[in-house]
Amino acid sequence: MQVYDDNYFMKQALREAQLAFDSGEVPVGAVVVADHQIIGRGHNSTEQLNDVTAHAEIIALTAASNYLQSKYLHRCTLYVTLEPCVMCAGALYWSQISRVVFGAQDDKRGFIRYGKDLLHPRTRLEFGVEMDACAHLLKAFFAQKR
Amino acid sequence: MQVYDDNYFMKQALREAQLAFDSGEVPVGAVVVADHQIIGRGHNSTEQLNDVTAHAEIIALTAASNYLQSKYLHRCTLYVTLEPCVMCAGALYWSQISRVVFGAQDDKRGFIRYGKDLLHPRTRLEFGVEMDACAHLLKAFFAQKR
Repeated sequence: MQVYDDNYFMKQALREAQLAFDSGEVPVGAVVVADHQIIGRGHNSTEQLNDVTAHAEIIALTAASNYLQSKYLHRCTLYVTLEPCVMCAGALYWSQISRVVFGAQDDKRGFIRYGKDLLHPRTRLEFGVEMDACAHLLKAFFAQKR
Repeated sequence: MQVYDDNYFMKQALREAQLAFDSGEVPVGAVVVADHQIIGRGHNSTEQLNDVTAHAEIIALTAASNYLQSKYLHRCTLYVTLEPCVMCAGALYWSQISRVVFGAQDDKRGFIRYGKDLLHPRTRLEFGVEMDACAHLLKAFFAQKR
């Protein structure tokens, strides 16, 4: 029996991250879920698109908004393999998304060092789901780049 | 004689803001300039596109990157009519843009209250160019909404 829990959806985000890895992009992936259904997916595509805004979260958010025909993502959860950066936290703020779950922490470029209030007061924040798998993929990527 | 100075380019950003105003969007406009030439334009389109990421700055940045075929905007200046939000400051960080000039301040949602270091150390920040005209357009928009 397939259980549609946080681990399941983070594994889906990891599949997206693997697609980024395979394209030579920093491997970060994201999915947006509403009512146990994936309504947006994305993986980091900044190199391929020559566009610094093409982070996994931005692509997944835009896809979900397009699906819902709403700029607000109430009752949605974003699963992302890495702690969002300031840009993505700012985008999540505007979306008023209900919940953000990330895998690995990013002490250098993650938003949390600027304060959790970069997210909207409506947004619940959790992390650590599939943390080791998320971190491992990133480490493998940077190890092969050296 | 046309002088291509900060006021000229901010007036171009104001023309973009007016397009947003005319579409019922919060009137913010932006242009990206390299070598005295506009290589990206954008105006706030969040309502029309149902997309919280469709801020003037993001659209102008993406257009400029597309023009240059580079995700970095070294030797470029962004002119924007309103102080950027956290999302847009985060995007500007990644672009390593040389200079950001904004018109009106945004004490509520502007990035500066989180610290100027949301921008890249390479980025010079200036503001107040055509401030009154930029602020006036915003005030006129919110007055008609009431």
